[in-house]
Formats: sequence, structure tokens, C-alpha cells
Amino acid sequence: MSQIAELIHSSVADDRRDARLYERYRDTLDLPVAWNDTLDTLVAHRSVRAYLPDALPEGTVELLVAAAQSAASSSNLQPWSVIAVEDPARKARLALLAGDQKQIYQAPLFLLWLVDLQRLTGIGEALSAPTVGLRYLESFLLGAVDTSLAAQSAVVALESIGLGSCYIGGIRNRPAEVAAELGLPPNVFALFGLTVGHPDPDRPASVKPRLPQEAVLFRETYGAGDNGLALAAYDHRLRGFQREQGMIERDWTEQATQRVGHDHLARSGRHVLRDILHALGFGLE
Amino acid sequence: MSQIAELIHSSVADDRRDARLYERYRDTLDLPVAWNDTLDTLVAHRSVRAYLPDALPEGTVELLVAAAQSAASSSNLQPWSVIAVEDPARKARLALLAGDQKQIYQAPLFLLWLVDLQRLTGIGEALSAPTVGLRYLESFLLGAVDTSLAAQSAVVALESIGLGSCYIGGIRNRPAEVAAELGLPPNVFALFGLTVGHPDPDRPASVKPRLPQEAVLFRETYGAGDNGLALAAYDHRLRGFQREQGMIERDWTEQATQRVGHDHLARSGRHVLRDILHALGFGLE
Repeated sequence: MSQIAELIHSSVADDRRDARLYERYRDTLDLPVAWNDTLDTLVAHRSVRAYLPDALPEGTVELLVAAAQSAASSSNLQPWSVIAVEDPARKARLALLAGDQKQIYQAPLFLLWLVDLQRLTGIGEALSAPTVGLRYLESFLLGAVDTSLAAQSAVVALESIGLGSCYIGGIRNRPAEVAAELGLPPNVFALFGLTVGHPDPDRPASVKPRLPQEAVLFRETYGAGDNGLALAAYDHRLRGFQREQGMIERDWTEQATQRVGHDHLARSGRHVLRDILHALGFGLE
Repeated sequence: MSQIAELIHSSVADDRRDARLYERYRDTLDLPVAWNDTLDTLVAHRSVRAYLPDALPEGTVELLVAAAQSAASSSNLQPWSVIAVEDPARKARLALLAGDQKQIYQAPLFLLWLVDLQRLTGIGEALSAPTVGLRYLESFLLGAVDTSLAAQSAVVALESIGLGSCYIGGIRNRPAEVAAELGLPPNVFALFGLTVGHPDPDRPASVKPRLPQEAVLFRETYGAGDNGLALAAYDHRLRGFQREQGMIERDWTEQATQRVGHDHLARSGRHVLRDILHALGFGLE
């Protein structure tokens, strides 16, 4: 590239960077970094809940699994599996178990990301080696972390080829029924689902503004100080977003606390998660 | 681009794709998908444990946090925070608490990724709204998932600009001491650390081969069948990798089961994680 072409290129990239960051924070974030396509994909993330009926490109599932398996795994234990569900009848049954979310019916692919301690248990049995460590809460937590890292790499991969997705935490509403539907053995738990498809251009998803960085990023030690100002600024910015979207205007601080009140959790069924995990075979000791 | 230039470009991309996938699986994976830089970054991931002392580009921390905050968050609760540690003395103390891993001393930046239910607790107190739902295991798990999705997006971002990183699960060996060092309030837990720096080109990290896809990917329901063949193939491929790396040759199946035996977990201190989380304020009900 000539020097002038390079300057134009980097100036266009800077504009794109600033626009992406503004959309994410609804505020100017002065970041003097060279932009690239991967950063653009990451910062432009949005959860897609409206899909076209179009089939996915050949090899999509295998591509997403390759990206997922490429994520880090603690001690290379690889304690997760994934089930690709495409059968409309099974998708419908899973949708009902996950709070009847319509995007599960609509997306051509529904991935179920599983914390899988059964593979290691089975290997231990075959080798007559003890695997009692799997009974500890630490092992379940390590499985949940690795499953999440894997899924997120799959999400970045699918967005890089123009597809969209939405995490479905509602799959934890009825874990025992979900396990039965998927034929899960003991020590396997569907941590979340992920709908995957071509975003419907007529019903585009929006970038959700996030908390100002000063509310979540600290230096050296936890910022004990008052972050009331940052939260008030966020409430204000999110109201602007809600107005644009034709949504009811409401403070995030109020919304978020309501979400973690007891009633909401109990209605979803997730207040008994610990008991159900025990029943599914996890020790959580 | 002219048609011929485009053909050459896509043929080069196909070769790069096939090489990356071969490196990951030590086997041919026939994936008829158009390759791009983001996919290349994802599949080329490696954990970097040797860093140059060079300072990071200006704005690196803020860039990684922007990528992290752009990841999905369940109900937009954003239940995580991150602490950027650069002080050599603090890094050294944290390294000792995390199994004395030398990459923590060496990396110019050590990020601590925190499940943070304190922000929501504090908001609830300010609004006199109940936040009892945070006491459930579900809330801790949701926090761990969202923290992991965020961190993984930061990892992809840093790799896209040529930096390297390594997750440090060892930070869970001594959670109470880590909390004291970082000044964490109740309801905040350091889920893992992440070293960040310029990879040392004289001590390059390798791509770790992963399980064959047939061992982790199922269609419609969980594959109850015998995956002994896939595991045997993986043991064989990993031995080839170990030979190349000058490591002691050992079956993965044997290594992995040893890792989840009781003794190993007890030596790390993580067998008492549940009790420590209770002491840190988490209900896990």
C-alpha cells in the first residue's frame, strides 16, 4: 500500500473504531489502538433473536466446534460436549422447557453446551483410576468456565461469517427435563443453549450499551469507592437506548435488582438448581 | 479484486485454513468454509507462558475491557469486574498464591477476572430492594458464565493484535488470601487470572491438539456410544505432539484422570472451595 493509501485506510479504521465504541458505551471512549476486523466483530456483538429460515452454510457446526475446541482448557481436561439440535420437533420441546422463547423455534440450529464430567468418569472407570476429584464444586466450576470459553469462541466465529446467535440461559429452568430430552448421562449438565442462524435484516438486533468502564475496571485493587455517578450515567444512557428502541423507559439499576429478587428466580425454577444438580450426579462438595 | 486475484486469494486462504485445522487436530478436517482473519486467530490460539518485558501498547487494558463488555450478559446483569495488576510486587505476591507460576512475574499485565455480585447487592441496598436471589447457586453460576464469556472475548481481542495470554486457574488455590490481597468486598470472587504480554519469539508456544470432534460433538441427543476409538486416536496424536516438544510421552486419558484424582485436587487447596465461597459471602443455596 502507498503511504497515502495507508493513511486513508487507517483513518477509515479509526472512524469505524470510534463509531463502534460509541455505540457500545453511548459515550466517547478515547482508545488510540489500531482497529482490525476481529476487534470490530467483537465490539459489534449483539444478541440476535430474529432469524431467516435459510439453511446454514455447509460445515457450520464443525467450524464452530473447531473454534470452540481451540479455546483454552484448564489442564487440557476438555470437560465439555455440545449437542447440535436441528430437528424442529426437538427444538420445539426444548423451547417450551426454556421459557417458550420463539428464537429457538426460528433458528435453524440450536446448540446445547454441556458441562461434561462423564467423559472423564468413564475413562477413570476404564483405567480403574479414581476420579473422586470430580465430586467437588471446583470440578463443576472448572467445567462451567471451560464450557463458556469454548462457546464464546464459537460465537465470535459465527459472527465473523455473518451469522447471529443468542445465548439461552432459560435452558437451566428445567434441567432434569432437558437432560431427559437430550438423553444426558449422569454428570452432564446443559449449561446454556445457543440459537444460531442468519439474522433477519428486516428485524435487526441492536448493540446493547454497557456500564461505563469505571464501574467494572479497577487498577491494582478493588475500587471500594462510590460508583454511584457511573451507575447514574448508565441509567441515563440506557434510557436513551430504550427510547430509540420504542421500549418502556426504566432504570437499569431498578431492572437489574428486580431480576435478582427472590420472586423472579423462583418463577424461573432456578432456585432449586443445586438440588437438581445433585440429582444429575454432581457432588458440588 | 480481479477474478484471478480472487481465486489466488481464496486458494491461499484455503491452504491456511487446512494447515490451522491440521495443527489443532493432528488430523485432516474437511471444512468447506471461507476462511478469514478472525477464524484464523481463533483456531491458532495457544497459551503463552513466556513473555518479553516490553510494555503493552497504550490503551491495551481499555481495549480488552471493551471487548469483554461486548460479550453477551444474561439479562444484561453484567455481574463481573476486572482488576488490572501491573505492580511487580503485587504480581509476585499473587504468583505465590497461584502456585508460583513464573509467567505471572514475567507478564507486564495480570488481569484478575471477578464474579462480582457486590455491585448488584449495593444497588439493592441503595434502592431498598431485595436481592435475595443472589444467594442461590444459580446466581453464582450465572456470574461465572458471564465472567468467562467476557474474558474469552478479551483473549480473542488481544490475540488479534499480536499479544499472548494464559489463563491462571491457580488463583483459585487460595481464594481468601487472594481476596485480601486485592481488597475484595464480600460477594466478589477471583474466578481466574489472565497473564497478558508480548509473546517471546525465542520461546514460542505451540498449538495444543484437541480431542477429535466425534468425542465432543453430538447430533440431536447425547452420543451414548463407545468413543474408545476417538480417545485412543487422541492419545496417539498427543504422544506425537509430546515427542515433538521434547516432553515425556504419556496418554492423555491417564494424565487427565490423574488430574481429577482426589490427591491432586487436595494438594491445590481447591477441595475446600465451597467452604471458602461461603466465607466470602456467597450463598450457593
